[in-house]
Amino acid sequence: MKMNAAVLEKLNEPLAVVADIQIPELARGQVLVRVAYSGVCHSQLMEARGARGEDRFLPHLLGHEGTGVVEAVGEGVTKVKPGDWVVLGWIKGLGLDGGGAQYLHAGRKINAGGVTTFNEHAVVAENRLVHLPEGIPLDVGVLFGCALPTGAGIVTNTIKPVPGSSLAVFGLGGIGLSALMATQLFDCRQVIAIDINPDKLALAKDFGATVTIDARNENVAARLRELTGAGLDYAVEATGLSSTIELAFESVRRGGGLCVFASHPAHGSRISIDPFELICGKRLQGSWGGECKPDEDIPKFAELYRQGRLPLERLITKRYRLADINEALDDLEAQRVGRPLLEISPELNQRYLADRQK
Amino acid sequence: MKMNAAVLEKLNEPLAVVADIQIPELARGQVLVRVAYSGVCHSQLMEARGARGEDRFLPHLLGHEGTGVVEAVGEGVTKVKPGDWVVLGWIKGLGLDGGGAQYLHAGRKINAGGVTTFNEHAVVAENRLVHLPEGIPLDVGVLFGCALPTGAGIVTNTIKPVPGSSLAVFGLGGIGLSALMATQLFDCRQVIAIDINPDKLALAKDFGATVTIDARNENVAARLRELTGAGLDYAVEATGLSSTIELAFESVRRGGGLCVFASHPAHGSRISIDPFELICGKRLQGSWGGECKPDEDIPKFAELYRQGRLPLERLITKRYRLADINEALDDLEAQRVGRPLLEISPELNQRYLADRQK
Ligand SMILES: [Zn+2]
Ligand SMILES: [Zn+2]
Repeated sequence: MKMNAAVLEKLNEPLAVVADIQIPELARGQVLVRVAYSGVCHSQLMEARGARGEDRFLPHLLGHEGTGVVEAVGEGVTKVKPGDWVVLGWIKGLGLDGGGAQYLHAGRKINAGGVTTFNEHAVVAENRLVHLPEGIPLDVGVLFGCALPTGAGIVTNTIKPVPGSSLAVFGLGGIGLSALMATQLFDCRQVIAIDINPDKLALAKDFGATVTIDARNENVAARLRELTGAGLDYAVEATGLSSTIELAFESVRRGGGLCVFASHPAHGSRISIDPFELICGKRLQGSWGGECKPDEDIPKFAELYRQGRLPLERLITKRYRLADINEALDDLEAQRVGRPLLEISPELNQRYLADRQK
Repeated sequence: MKMNAAVLEKLNEPLAVVADIQIPELARGQVLVRVAYSGVCHSQLMEARGARGEDRFLPHLLGHEGTGVVEAVGEGVTKVKPGDWVVLGWIKGLGLDGGGAQYLHAGRKINAGGVTTFNEHAVVAENRLVHLPEGIPLDVGVLFGCALPTGAGIVTNTIKPVPGSSLAVFGLGGIGLSALMATQLFDCRQVIAIDINPDKLALAKDFGATVTIDARNENVAARLRELTGAGLDYAVEATGLSSTIELAFESVRRGGGLCVFASHPAHGSRISIDPFELICGKRLQGSWGGECKPDEDIPKFAELYRQGRLPLERLITKRYRLADINEALDDLEAQRVGRPLLEISPELNQRYLADRQK
């Protein structure tokens, strides 16, 4: 069987959209998925732009959040069966860790990790799949693979804001907006959204931000001091910039203020902090996928979506064909778009709707 | 009433030992203590050497761990009464926060914080005093004011090592050695002590270190990798150097490794860390006095001392008169001594022993 896929051939060059890629046989713990939709996140941008350092897997496939339908399962797979609708994501859950795959194209190998989604078919490790919960549109489902568990997970699993607290979100991409949505499940006194894009700041107000700060025109540190006095109770950082992690850390209060960052800054970048602030009880944590257990957390988030409490469709502001993947990456880099959606095989949607009406 | 005291007159100059300092009247929440013994710790060295930045309180008294006997109490004080034997320390506990005091000498003011101990008498805030528990020698008691709660508290309150874990202590001053002693209350598989002083490394073996590393002759990072594989479960940093905090953080394992530093590096120094290590689950925390509640924790530590499980007297390797305070600071700076002990009014010891035999 052959397919089209976006391939990272060389760092710092556009992805190549390659036809007639040969799909390998399934190994133990692997699942073949036909991909319907994929999200595009900052991680793939960093990979493509060489910001993760040397890449010894070139050429390779990429993408780590998507939805699709199972076509075949390898030995040992019990979690899903052909015909099941699934979420593909990078956070490991239950099931076998089926490892990566090697595709072939015109005699050369193309590598892939345990999950990729910028491709029409994907050989995926069982533990990177979760059943797509009832009531979730097939396109919206991609957000359950990365942005939502990471952003909302930081709020619901890591921070768990206490009533009356103050929380700021730095950077309103998919992760930041998901975090913002999740604050609505708690009783925060102050929810502050910070970005440089006026459209995203307007969206943030609809998602429950009590204050927005436009970092292009305002001194963020000074404004936060004015708003919070001694400092924030919680900061969620999701810009991918070391300097913003430092700013977010400085903005939390001594004696328990907590800064959690989800962003993974460019390879080799460091953060510089005043150790005395840690001694005085400021806390700094990195987050690995919002500490989510996909098999437990995705159904919970789905229930909140069905109740209308997580308006996820509003994160998806622009749609692209797989052939336009480089435009999607450029738009993401230039901050012209929220979460780009790749329509890999949108024709699956009819079948999905028919299946769900049974 | 008048007394002798060491006074910090100017940064980066020796302390002045000044006679005939006038003791102020007690304000609400203050207690007058006759000081028997005082410890000298890295904090006073940093203050005297100007490493805390500009000092707007000059001239002032200093010292923040000691023992003595209560001579008088101000309005509102209920925790102690004249004749009580007490530990003086900087970590706030129960009682009124009686604030600092202003002493007078030859018409000029000499400032002091809520506790000072390089002086024959001290006006101390009620909340910086705890009763000296039964069975504790008057000189050993000084360690209950700073080194022991901070060092042992990091292990017993903050880290609470799980059975079979690995823990390293970086820097074997009073805090580091106290941390090392406290590891003996847990069932660690590996306890690694790191310093540049062979005498301290020898002492560490007696305190239960399973391995010692001499940082003058060995590559600490490489040796720790060899000893621990994926990294330490816990690191306790107590050198006061930013570079050692960075090394200690790098030495803990991904996925939960915890580095706690007690040391307060020089004003303006920063630590530089790789944010990806935090994303991968390494943890970094500063410690404020080992998270101790003095009124609860000092009696607990005293009980361990009486059981012979905290051989505190071995931390005190050299004794000095108040007049020799600058020699003590020089020895501490050159790492020639563990915890210097100032014998301020050692003649009180006879009265103490007599009181305790009643
Ligand atoms: Zn992602
Ligand atoms: Zn101290």
